[in-house]
Amino acid sequence: MTHTLTSFFNSVPRFRDGGDTPRAYLERCLETIAAREPDVRAFVCLDEANARAAADEATARYRQGRPLSPIDGCPVAVKDIIETADLPTQMNSRIFEGWQPNRDAACVYALRQGGAVILGKTVTTEFATAASGPTRNPNDLTRTPGGSSSGSAAAVAAGMAPVALGTQTAGSILRPAAYCGVHGFKPSHAALNIGGIHPLSNSHDTLGTIAGSLADAWVTARYIAELVGGTPPHPGLDGPTTLPAPEKPSTLALLRTEAWPTVDPDTAEAFDRALGQLRSAGVAIADAESDAAIAALETLLEGVDGVARTIAIYERRWPFLEYLHRYPDRLSPEAADRSKKSAEISREEFLTAYRQQEAIRLQIDSLRDQVDGFVSLTAAGPAPVGLEHTGDRSFQIFWTLTGTPSFTLPRLTAGGLPVGLQVMGFRDADAALAGTAHWIDTLLAG
Amino acid sequence: MTHTLTSFFNSVPRFRDGGDTPRAYLERCLETIAAREPDVRAFVCLDEANARAAADEATARYRQGRPLSPIDGCPVAVKDIIETADLPTQMNSRIFEGWQPNRDAACVYALRQGGAVILGKTVTTEFATAASGPTRNPNDLTRTPGGSSSGSAAAVAAGMAPVALGTQTAGSILRPAAYCGVHGFKPSHAALNIGGIHPLSNSHDTLGTIAGSLADAWVTARYIAELVGGTPPHPGLDGPTTLPAPEKPSTLALLRTEAWPTVDPDTAEAFDRALGQLRSAGVAIADAESDAAIAALETLLEGVDGVARTIAIYERRWPFLEYLHRYPDRLSPEAADRSKKSAEISREEFLTAYRQQEAIRLQIDSLRDQVDGFVSLTAAGPAPVGLEHTGDRSFQIFWTLTGTPSFTLPRLTAGGLPVGLQVMGFRDADAALAGTAHWIDTLLAG
Repeated sequence: MTHTLTSFFNSVPRFRDGGDTPRAYLERCLETIAAREPDVRAFVCLDEANARAAADEATARYRQGRPLSPIDGCPVAVKDIIETADLPTQMNSRIFEGWQPNRDAACVYALRQGGAVILGKTVTTEFATAASGPTRNPNDLTRTPGGSSSGSAAAVAAGMAPVALGTQTAGSILRPAAYCGVHGFKPSHAALNIGGIHPLSNSHDTLGTIAGSLADAWVTARYIAELVGGTPPHPGLDGPTTLPAPEKPSTLALLRTEAWPTVDPDTAEAFDRALGQLRSAGVAIADAESDAAIAALETLLEGVDGVARTIAIYERRWPFLEYLHRYPDRLSPEAADRSKKSAEISREEFLTAYRQQEAIRLQIDSLRDQVDGFVSLTAAGPAPVGLEHTGDRSFQIFWTLTGTPSFTLPRLTAGGLPVGLQVMGFRDADAALAGTAHWIDTLLAG
Repeated sequence: MTHTLTSFFNSVPRFRDGGDTPRAYLERCLETIAAREPDVRAFVCLDEANARAAADEATARYRQGRPLSPIDGCPVAVKDIIETADLPTQMNSRIFEGWQPNRDAACVYALRQGGAVILGKTVTTEFATAASGPTRNPNDLTRTPGGSSSGSAAAVAAGMAPVALGTQTAGSILRPAAYCGVHGFKPSHAALNIGGIHPLSNSHDTLGTIAGSLADAWVTARYIAELVGGTPPHPGLDGPTTLPAPEKPSTLALLRTEAWPTVDPDTAEAFDRALGQLRSAGVAIADAESDAAIAALETLLEGVDGVARTIAIYERRWPFLEYLHRYPDRLSPEAADRSKKSAEISREEFLTAYRQQEAIRLQIDSLRDQVDGFVSLTAAGPAPVGLEHTGDRSFQIFWTLTGTPSFTLPRLTAGGLPVGLQVMGFRDADAALAGTAHWIDTLLAG
């Protein structure tokens, strides 16, 4: 069960020469949705009529040789914590049941301006943090798709959409993308404008893309930044508007992190094979054993989970204490519990965690001249069985805490299920990282 | 026409000994509202029933000797760009006519948790930036109250409420407070959580207080930070929970800025008299003529208006481009024009302005060991005649751009009308500034 939809970006030449149209592309998505959605349950709601109208307009523009943008006609699925003016935005929360915003979030505004086709809203865990939704992993319906961007990853993996929007505060873009076997891109923190997205943690909330190809993930993200920039004052994701050319790294730092003992044997073997391919292609792999600076970073990364938790929980005092007070019966026990905890963390504990975060960020920056990027797993193994828990965040959280960009590449398998290779870069050097990831993705795709 | 309501904070001992009650205090506010509101038009909507219920609960708590907080029972008027779960939040915009949020903004949540009495919503200019509202200056109904926190300042000045919440992105707390003859406090940027407040510019949006006394302004702001902190990751306004004791400054830097030639003669004379009082009391006044670092700062501050405009307009691309696209007929021409402009500023222009802002901030910081604070006028004169324009921002904008705290003290008059003395401090040293302002306020009150 792998992704079979043609990359949207790769289809553009055929839209231009008339061999294909955005409307026909959309119909293929809708056919897949009709076939798979009853099992996969990726969407909270669909907007077929508006999607067809938007695809028709895009089709007409390509016919006239005047597409609006590199994403004109691209079907996009939107995580349901992102405001949409024509579809409810419900956060998988009983507090927001039926809530209809009067505006599009910044990213959705940008997509529509570029002619993208908003397909519908995808299932999220409650407020992107707590109770899981009904979505199943398209590769194995008994398994979680990961979360919190569950529906976005599943929709792309099932071939229902070439691109979906996701958000990550801990591991919510990369983990579901890896579990579902698709590409995920978490840009540098604030590089994509989060205006109109329900807040969890200002320090960590990050908007990104999940897609069937690296090109679709990059081009969509880059276009959003073109129109609405980053979260102010971040000026927005920089770099070429098309996927940066493959750039072979000289040296990559391997980060095992303290979660390494949890990696399952098949996954470890697949990862080692990938490292072998990189070495065979002439890439040097440095790690904590060979390099003192990487060892220092690994040491700093121990306990990162607690640091991230202190910051993220502290920062969610509003609106979650307000929800807990006003709607105590409409929060899941898990969400209620975390909301309560947000009041228990002291200013000093928060500031201590914040300083630890800064120390980690400085240590990463100190490696800028020494390595071209970092590699790790995206998760300790394939998607676990069961829908109640969306999996472990250990392998995603550290690169969220640091605000640095990462990609997950669906180029490994374990036991026939997809496993993600995580490729990580330096803060605001997203374009360079995309070139590196492009090279690795091409190498491993064989 | 001056503020006659007793400071709430000063009334607390009488609430405790039973000589007064929050309910009686509220009734005095409501009587003033009944008498003055038809002329002043400070409120968009009032919530008398809920306010009375909240005041009764506070009264019972004082009776039992168990007030919830230093602001228990304090009537607070809330600017209508701040979300309230039980009152519409309309931004003085036709786009938000009748809009009812499902939650309280962070600051309103905090106030209610402390037992404060939410009186109602006050008139703002459109989205706190464009078309003015119907509010009149209580000191002279032919004059503007200033903006954008027009209703908040007018309500306090008319004695309708001891405290009101305002926001400042350019001059929107300090100018109306000065024009109306009351105290205004703009904390350091992000020191009060702006969650649930309609955004204009992340870099400059600041929540603060307008009050009939310095104590009410400080205590209310400080309590908000106690519960919900700053805008993450800012941990929130720090310092004592009661107004810091008066602290005589050794040296104050006088900032004239390039707007000095616009100051009217009576106002300049009043300001000079105040400087004379400070000098007589033994405070050294340094300025650009006597000090090279202050001269350098004055030079950097030239053209600050354009820098602030570039940053603030760039940062409002979302949601204003979305509003312009979706509701072109529901924006005032002024708001529509600024929205359009936000798309015209390039990334490079924004980054240049941002670097200029950083240079100014560094220059201010370099004076930390040299002066205890800064003084200037809050505006070039008293409130102008007419309601269409809310006045000039020149004397407020520079200390907003810099993210540094400021107070306006209603201790000067010109032609029988109030004029504000602005007292400014260093970033995140709000408590020290409050002590300085307290000392100056006491001195000038005579």
